[in-house]
Amino acid sequence: MLYFEDFIQGRRFDYSPVRMRTDEMIAFASEFDPQPMHLDEEVGRSSILGGLAASGWHTSAVGMRMMIEAFLGDSSSQGSPGVDFMEWKKPVLAGDILSGFSLVLEARPSKTKPTIGLVKFRNEIENQSGETVAASECSVMFRRRNGEARS
Amino acid sequence: MLYFEDFIQGRRFDYSPVRMRTDEMIAFASEFDPQPMHLDEEVGRSSILGGLAASGWHTSAVGMRMMIEAFLGDSSSQGSPGVDFMEWKKPVLAGDILSGFSLVLEARPSKTKPTIGLVKFRNEIENQSGETVAASECSVMFRRRNGEARS
Repeated sequence: MLYFEDFIQGRRFDYSPVRMRTDEMIAFASEFDPQPMHLDEEVGRSSILGGLAASGWHTSAVGMRMMIEAFLGDSSSQGSPGVDFMEWKKPVLAGDILSGFSLVLEARPSKTKPTIGLVKFRNEIENQSGETVAASECSVMFRRRNGEARS
Repeated sequence: MLYFEDFIQGRRFDYSPVRMRTDEMIAFASEFDPQPMHLDEEVGRSSILGGLAASGWHTSAVGMRMMIEAFLGDSSSQGSPGVDFMEWKKPVLAGDILSGFSLVLEARPSKTKPTIGLVKFRNEIENQSGETVAASECSVMFRRRNGEARS
């Protein structure tokens, strides 16, 4: 189990690859982002995106899942206050295989809560051609190893 | 249909209310953010969140849906290059009724693409008690009214 103290500046967590399936892309977009380029292959092909393209929110949510599997799921994470920025740099198309990493940019103890530390990550998602399709920075709160347990 | 020219600084689009259902919160979290406080009511109640809490990504995706219904779905939107920041300020709990608005902060024609303009929005999501649970700023590209059609 990873605690605040394990997130040393420069430590990198690599994501396992995830294939973006057409049916999942359409299901997500139908529920949350029903724009034609996310729903219809023909519209996607004739748009600047070049094919059925995932909602940026879908790509971001898949990135969250990849973070959980890579390290967050076995950590003392107490959640995140938000995202500093999120760039959707390239279209994510049906069939793309995404991977990527989270890199520790900085780690500092909380000033107000002695049992907690805040870790800032740079997260990048890339496709099978090695192109970065999304990049973001966010902070996550972790319990400290010897802190009061609060689960 | 709303074009770039319709997004005047200060114009505000109000969202229709959406109720956060327990089953949808658990389904989203199971797929994208399987952390205990998003999956298990008992864990949520005993955490600092105070109950089964939606993944921040779920709240953000619901916010996207509310934007689509309020104005984006009937516009010349060409998608977004990303999000400037996203703050998850308060827990979103099962049964909460979310609403909110998007406010036009600025609008400017693209320097490189004469048929496109970029509009920056402030988006806020609030709960039934009027507390802001999420806030973000993002830019969206829109076709100009007399621009070359590209659908």
